[in-house]
Amino acid sequence: MKIIEIKKSVFADNDRDADELRRELAGRGVFLLNLMSSPGSGKTTTLIKTIKLLKDKLNIAVMEADIDGDVDAVKISEATGIQTIQLHTGGMCHLDAEMTRQGIGNLDLDNTDLIILENVGNLVCPAEFDTGSSANAMILSVPEGHDKPLKYPLMFSVCNLVLVNKTDVMPYFDFDLGKCEEYVHMRNPKAQIIPICAKTGEGVDKFAEWLLQKVKELKR
Amino acid sequence: MKIIEIKKSVFADNDRDADELRRELAGRGVFLLNLMSSPGSGKTTTLIKTIKLLKDKLNIAVMEADIDGDVDAVKISEATGIQTIQLHTGGMCHLDAEMTRQGIGNLDLDNTDLIILENVGNLVCPAEFDTGSSANAMILSVPEGHDKPLKYPLMFSVCNLVLVNKTDVMPYFDFDLGKCEEYVHMRNPKAQIIPICAKTGEGVDKFAEWLLQKVKELKR
Repeated sequence: MKIIEIKKSVFADNDRDADELRRELAGRGVFLLNLMSSPGSGKTTTLIKTIKLLKDKLNIAVMEADIDGDVDAVKISEATGIQTIQLHTGGMCHLDAEMTRQGIGNLDLDNTDLIILENVGNLVCPAEFDTGSSANAMILSVPEGHDKPLKYPLMFSVCNLVLVNKTDVMPYFDFDLGKCEEYVHMRNPKAQIIPICAKTGEGVDKFAEWLLQKVKELKR
Repeated sequence: MKIIEIKKSVFADNDRDADELRRELAGRGVFLLNLMSSPGSGKTTTLIKTIKLLKDKLNIAVMEADIDGDVDAVKISEATGIQTIQLHTGGMCHLDAEMTRQGIGNLDLDNTDLIILENVGNLVCPAEFDTGSSANAMILSVPEGHDKPLKYPLMFSVCNLVLVNKTDVMPYFDFDLGKCEEYVHMRNPKAQIIPICAKTGEGVDKFAEWLLQKVKELKR
């Protein structure tokens, strides 16, 4: 497990840089998923469960972006044995395409089908910067409440997939899945929604299947 | 309940501007609390319960900062009847001192002892900008996990008070309060920690007492 200190991007045109990175990765048959969420929504647990289901079918690498620390990268590396690198953002609240490229430069792309970028825990800034990912996904956890698409519109607009996590604690919170779906689709009518419980593993197979299909489509 | 569209600050020196605002407010006997947290940690519910305990003792105003929407401001206004204004940050992930000042300009300061600013739900950016507040507090909710001070160091460094919310669901999450306290104090040895459950009201009286003391100290 490597720790990389990411430098602030000097590129002015992030959208152009993101498109270039996306093309390059597609040309090499590598799918990059940008996974976003609030702090503590369960990104790491979800990834560990998902990677265990997929690692015999795909070569997977994980890039963990955090302000500081390496707890998640160590957890994923120990639990799954796959290529994992920790990106330190130097206090920054998001990754852009050039920062993502700096991380990818440390991976063995010839032996990688799928890179999962665990972005900084934040529902605002990461949504504003195209990382060059092939798709964006986000995790909304039940304790956060079903009203989040009303308050963080851009995050839900840019995501192809919304995982609703921690469904096991639904009885203890006032979370309305129907309303959540309605609000997500208000922001993005095409967004797919998959309820999961990363702790028990429920529904994680559907996310794994979604990823497998996406990687296959890219390689076609 | 008013909605204010905040304009991006043109002041280069936020720290100086924050100090000025802090001095002005102190001169008028107004205490400004900057309340931060992740999305969905329970800021609004905590505020409603706290205001109900304090509104006969203090004149309180609330400023709700959000990217979009006004659900929280409406909730607080309806539940407590106090002065409440909604600040729209125009997509921005934080408030600085000048943006805070724009909000305060809409309040009746002569009849206000305590202003509570509910900052944008985000553990990264709001910690980087001094709002001119008299004190900073943050809410960490149990479902987010006790490891958050390891990942979001600055947020915990700048906070005088950490409220650990949703203690009622402690049995359903792997949350270790002892470790949480250890990690918070690693970032800020002076931070006070109060466990609360905004839903049931448990511990909220301690937060109300803390606020009352702070306002009294300022007015002395």
